[in-house]
Amino acid sequence: MITLKQLAEKIGGKLHGDPDCEITGVASLNKAVSGDLCFLADSRYKKYLSQTSASAVILPASLLEDCPVHAIVVDVPDVAYVNAIKAIYPEEKFPGGIHPSAVVGNNCDIHQTAWIGPNAVIEDNVTIGAGCFIGAGTSIGKNSSIGQDGHIAANVSISYGTVIGERALIHSGVVIGADGFGFANNKGQWLRIPQLGGVRIGDDVEVGANSTIDRGAIEDTVIGHGVKLDNLIQIAHNVQIGDHTAIAACTGVAGSVKIGKRCTIAGQVGIAGHLELGDDVHITGKSLITKSILKSGVYSSGPAPAEPQNIWRRNIVRYRQLDEMANRLAELEKQLNKDK
Amino acid sequence: MITLKQLAEKIGGKLHGDPDCEITGVASLNKAVSGDLCFLADSRYKKYLSQTSASAVILPASLLEDCPVHAIVVDVPDVAYVNAIKAIYPEEKFPGGIHPSAVVGNNCDIHQTAWIGPNAVIEDNVTIGAGCFIGAGTSIGKNSSIGQDGHIAANVSISYGTVIGERALIHSGVVIGADGFGFANNKGQWLRIPQLGGVRIGDDVEVGANSTIDRGAIEDTVIGHGVKLDNLIQIAHNVQIGDHTAIAACTGVAGSVKIGKRCTIAGQVGIAGHLELGDDVHITGKSLITKSILKSGVYSSGPAPAEPQNIWRRNIVRYRQLDEMANRLAELEKQLNKDK
Amino acid sequence: MITLKQLAEKIGGKLHGDPDCEITGVASLNKAVSGDLCFLADSRYKKYLSQTSASAVILPASLLEDCPVHAIVVDVPDVAYVNAIKAIYPEEKFPGGIHPSAVVGNNCDIHQTAWIGPNAVIEDNVTIGAGCFIGAGTSIGKNSSIGQDGHIAANVSISYGTVIGERALIHSGVVIGADGFGFANNKGQWLRIPQLGGVRIGDDVEVGANSTIDRGAIEDTVIGHGVKLDNLIQIAHNVQIGDHTAIAACTGVAGSVKIGKRCTIAGQVGIAGHLELGDDVHITGKSLITKSILKSGVYSSGPAPAEPQNIWRRNIVRYRQLDEMANRLAELEKQLNKDK
Repeated sequence: MITLKQLAEKIGGKLHGDPDCEITGVASLNKAVSGDLCFLADSRYKKYLSQTSASAVILPASLLEDCPVHAIVVDVPDVAYVNAIKAIYPEEKFPGGIHPSAVVGNNCDIHQTAWIGPNAVIEDNVTIGAGCFIGAGTSIGKNSSIGQDGHIAANVSISYGTVIGERALIHSGVVIGADGFGFANNKGQWLRIPQLGGVRIGDDVEVGANSTIDRGAIEDTVIGHGVKLDNLIQIAHNVQIGDHTAIAACTGVAGSVKIGKRCTIAGQVGIAGHLELGDDVHITGKSLITKSILKSGVYSSGPAPAEPQNIWRRNIVRYRQLDEMANRLAELEKQLNKDK
Repeated sequence: MITLKQLAEKIGGKLHGDPDCEITGVASLNKAVSGDLCFLADSRYKKYLSQTSASAVILPASLLEDCPVHAIVVDVPDVAYVNAIKAIYPEEKFPGGIHPSAVVGNNCDIHQTAWIGPNAVIEDNVTIGAGCFIGAGTSIGKNSSIGQDGHIAANVSISYGTVIGERALIHSGVVIGADGFGFANNKGQWLRIPQLGGVRIGDDVEVGANSTIDRGAIEDTVIGHGVKLDNLIQIAHNVQIGDHTAIAACTGVAGSVKIGKRCTIAGQVGIAGHLELGDDVHITGKSLITKSILKSGVYSSGPAPAEPQNIWRRNIVRYRQLDEMANRLAELEKQLNKDK
Repeated sequence: MITLKQLAEKIGGKLHGDPDCEITGVASLNKAVSGDLCFLADSRYKKYLSQTSASAVILPASLLEDCPVHAIVVDVPDVAYVNAIKAIYPEEKFPGGIHPSAVVGNNCDIHQTAWIGPNAVIEDNVTIGAGCFIGAGTSIGKNSSIGQDGHIAANVSISYGTVIGERALIHSGVVIGADGFGFANNKGQWLRIPQLGGVRIGDDVEVGANSTIDRGAIEDTVIGHGVKLDNLIQIAHNVQIGDHTAIAACTGVAGSVKIGKRCTIAGQVGIAGHLELGDDVHITGKSLITKSILKSGVYSSGPAPAEPQNIWRRNIVRYRQLDEMANRLAELEKQLNKDK
């Protein structure tokens, strides 16, 4: 429970309304009840504002006059909203310690404020920083280190020699440091190339559930600071991802790709091996990237949006005749010019 | 071992042949041996019927005259086949109890007929219904509940506050309730938006291996009754899936998508955020959905089927000239009409 | 530490340079320092050769004259490089035994040289061959067997009745033997078809992190010898994959597909159910396969490479007018021929 006055101070906003109004939770505009705080950043959702039963709304000055309840005016509503949540729902504390069912190897440096969960397995020579949370059943290979305040959820697999920075958030089922997919063709049979590199992950990185980040072949796979990866993403060996780049679910990044800073890559994108994306490159969903893109901007490939199947079929047939159509078009042009 | 007479009664079919014939297993038509039961639903596979060595076949009346062996005639052969399997191979019973290596928190309500497997971790305040099976190494977060007769396989990760209905079948590696992928952009850096919602899953739901279902941002992510999800599927935060919808492997559903009832969505489909699919919408494989589809029917996008690479390359080149081709075509039409 | 003379003998190459030169590691050409060995297979990277600080380079005879340092000349540099790595970095030995926290069922046959890691769970009647390594938290279902020298990483889930050959390398998070996705439609509700088959995996198979291989419906799902699967791949029930086929990350193979020998399938490919690919078929990235391909060769579908979004949008619009454009083109041709 917190008053609007306290909240406005915490998030650096200007209060319009009752400073003593008590806030007990957050909700979306159309589901809020008394005691709830909402936020509105986008004028497209203004219609929900007039009917809200929330006690107060965080919004930009431009939407203030449409607000029927108390308001806190801020410049960036979604950032203010995050800070408000943190004020309303303080993070749960957990005690430091090692659950008796956890297995911890030799020569580990586990900070006394870190928590090692039940049935977690920490191999030899691992460093776990202050305030870390290691979830149930998670396995951390030897010679790895997790920086302070890292949260590693349940059933994560981190292979040997992995280095993870501070404030990491690694969700369940993530696999970091499995061997890269590298083979020599030996008379028709695949001969595994030992993967000697590791994985280095910067500060403030999030990795979504069941994503995979392979270890490098010779040098390391490197994830920069502030990188955010969604679920079920594949990061192959020796990929480098620049600071503050975000990648949505189900995207696959092939080996040795170098991605710049502040890029956004949507879901189900595929990036072929050894390419480079520059800084501030943005890729839309389901695109296929087969050439480097150095200039910042928004890029797309991927299919046309879905249509009724009979229409789609007709266009697919025509698509496969495209080269022939182009030749017929050129022939017509020739003929017409000749006729003149 | 069961006789054909007993079997025909159990599955509600009409027996043509020896009632005392003993059935010991099931097989496909072309691999069956004496003692095997087969089923045939589709006349396309009739050719295998004449040569089968099975003892008996479940089939519709229309295929009876082609059957060289005993037959049980039913209206819906595949449903009858499922019931026959259950009669021939009774499900293995498991004893209730908690394996000594499992870790169970405080204040849990675990039914005495439920089984908690080795090295499973059940946090505080969890309810596990009658007849549930919790596999080895599975982790269930606090304040969650699993309805009766749920089967949670090995190494599943269920986060706090998850509610799962009755008769769930959750395969290995599934992650339910990881944080949704939501960030505010704070001067070029991504600021995590706390994900306060949960995941609610109805009755008779199946979730395939290594699929992920994220928790909601404010409200819950909701999976309806009878929903079937294949492997490696991503369900983002605040998705709602209607009853009896089935989704094939590797499909990604972005945040806040609402999918209707009885939809079928094929593999590797991508559905962009905040869209709505109506009831009985069917999407073919690898489609990209970027607009809501409210009317029932079959929809497609996605690439043309594969061709030899040189042909594909030629059409791709033409594709990238399409806008220019369209303009040249319009120019020709103008010219020709003018000439007249 | 090894001398160049020893190394050249081990890998069967011809030494050009100082036989007593000591090699202590491997590196890439542009990052190597004194003591490092490199390899160069591709003349495209020749530019790095002239400036390398490596002590020696493995290369083909054709590149020898450009090499400024010691060289070992071989026919197939990448195969020689793998053998060199094995000579320079001998594999770590692990002791046989069962970690006290592991749970092993009844009637298991675990070779004394095998290692069962912490919190692993081995159910009844499992066979683990000589020299196997079973990682932390891995679960192996009853009646399964792992051939000798298998390496199963942490948190792998192998379901009952799975048979894996010799020298397997199964990475973390892999799920083998989960139920196939098979349902009968019973008056609008999905009725699970019991999946009675298993999974059989040949020798020298690698399965990448978080990939899934489902058990068969009646017969087994079968993975041939020497097959290499990358991360996050879905192999559905009753798929058959021929010997020495390699599949890249995020590809999905639907039920009952039969893939030949020595195929290569790139990333994010989708193969629809019940199709057949012949031997030596090669599929490029993101392709959709909806018809069988029996003739060897390289096949593609999938989108055009990414373009700036405004250009892509224009072509997408035209794409959806393709059928109409084709009709207009035919009309023009008719008109022009009539005019003559």
